[in-house]
Amino acid sequence: MSKLSWIAVDWGTTQLRAWAMDSEDQVIANTSSDRGMGRLTPPEFESALLELVEPWLEASTPALVVACGMVGARQGWHEAPYADVKDAFDPQITWVDTTDQRLHVCILPGVRQLVPADVMRGEETQITGVLALEPKFNGMLCLPGTHTKWAEVKEGTLRGFKTYMTGEIFGLLSSASVLSHSVNGSAMDQTAFIESVLTVAKHPESLAGSLFSIRSMDLLHGASPAVARARLSGSLIGAELASVTSNTALESETLIIGTDQLAKLYAAGLRALDKPARMLNADDCTLAGLKRAKAGLTLDVL
Amino acid sequence: MSKLSWIAVDWGTTQLRAWAMDSEDQVIANTSSDRGMGRLTPPEFESALLELVEPWLEASTPALVVACGMVGARQGWHEAPYADVKDAFDPQITWVDTTDQRLHVCILPGVRQLVPADVMRGEETQITGVLALEPKFNGMLCLPGTHTKWAEVKEGTLRGFKTYMTGEIFGLLSSASVLSHSVNGSAMDQTAFIESVLTVAKHPESLAGSLFSIRSMDLLHGASPAVARARLSGSLIGAELASVTSNTALESETLIIGTDQLAKLYAAGLRALDKPARMLNADDCTLAGLKRAKAGLTLDVL
Repeated sequence: MSKLSWIAVDWGTTQLRAWAMDSEDQVIANTSSDRGMGRLTPPEFESALLELVEPWLEASTPALVVACGMVGARQGWHEAPYADVKDAFDPQITWVDTTDQRLHVCILPGVRQLVPADVMRGEETQITGVLALEPKFNGMLCLPGTHTKWAEVKEGTLRGFKTYMTGEIFGLLSSASVLSHSVNGSAMDQTAFIESVLTVAKHPESLAGSLFSIRSMDLLHGASPAVARARLSGSLIGAELASVTSNTALESETLIIGTDQLAKLYAAGLRALDKPARMLNADDCTLAGLKRAKAGLTLDVL
Repeated sequence: MSKLSWIAVDWGTTQLRAWAMDSEDQVIANTSSDRGMGRLTPPEFESALLELVEPWLEASTPALVVACGMVGARQGWHEAPYADVKDAFDPQITWVDTTDQRLHVCILPGVRQLVPADVMRGEETQITGVLALEPKFNGMLCLPGTHTKWAEVKEGTLRGFKTYMTGEIFGLLSSASVLSHSVNGSAMDQTAFIESVLTVAKHPESLAGSLFSIRSMDLLHGASPAVARARLSGSLIGAELASVTSNTALESETLIIGTDQLAKLYAAGLRALDKPARMLNADDCTLAGLKRAKAGLTLDVL
């Protein structure tokens, strides 16, 4: 293995991931665990990190660790106060005291937008990464997840962003509502998904009435779980796209940060609405963002 | 106490209620318990009923029991197959065998609508009751609840209905989503409620983007729980009213079946949209519907 120069960390609510980086910012190893912020109390963070990265450490040289995500929330390891939108790509970092002297840990802040009020933690690093990978990009970024973020990027700056709870609402309705009896399984009917996206994106007033009908269609006409699940997902994503397209025409290509099943649904929904969309690998964006943050540190702080 | 003639029963998912009726259809006693359909297996229904009504029974004369609601669902005491919409006010009843010979129990069916697919169990009896109380009413009925029903009544017939999951979605989002941290308590700011209803009813495309902002407003600007709760409730009811008013102009008065807090929110929302609305006591409607069903039985079956 090449010599360790620093460690990049993405520490979200459910997952902790780390990359060992050499002095050329190349990945020499990577690892992960399910010890996300949501499962840890503040004193447990250091050992959760050590558990993963200790094999990379040398006794003589402290390793710089650059971490982004919910690790910096109030309920995280150490609160990293939000940066304002205008400082999103040049943020103040927060240093964390560690017991183990081989670790030299800093946390990147989240970003807050005062009007309209909104916050993010972790996605700002992916957005930084997109601009590192595609410095000339102007347009909308879509970062799908439990809380999907839409961010507008123009001339190398973050202009604003908006959060949608679509993923969390889908999770609750599919697991804990009366619809759970109808949408079981993981299969998704693509045709029914696109139909539902188009219906609700074009007629957002139809959303509220479309949800219970998923159950009724099953009770009276025996709709398949794959169709029911597709109608629920499509209706909710359609409502999100109605909101997004009411604020921006999405004339240029939308970049979707993610290549998983959820990112593919957003891509399919956008294309059905004749909106061009392209997917970028989310890990690539995260890592590019952490590299750029680390480069800033080298100049200013180290 | 006057002599018992029959027993009216409203047996929903969470509650069981019974009224002792004399031969003039006057209430001579009433009682209730929390042994709703959702907490019982089929063999437990008879004892749950006896627990409440046994003091009213006489050894010599079997008492007629007329029951409506989820008691007739597949998971209830005995399935009472759905009536079609056209037969909603003249339904086939289902007799239930009992061990105790003092009980002579029948269950009213729910109603199904094939296109657009929809179902109800219990509300059809309240709708029957509204027509017994106000036989000349033409227009929309709103029956607020976990699953709110909107029904169109014209010339003494049920023309169609639609179910909205608004109450269930509010329950899930306020107790189990990230919004639960912001909407705690039961207070509701009336001004914020009306503002949210109007915004989403007039601009239904704004719904998806309005939900996470309830959390962000709290995080960044310290919104009060009463305002946050009002915005969540108002946005969801506004989305429902957007759907309802896209299908019907609501030019004549809407009758709201219920006088509780939820019914008052619907009334306030409708009035803010310049739609006339009047509340009817839900128990009065249920009882009027059960009386009318019992009167039909006397002629046809007994």
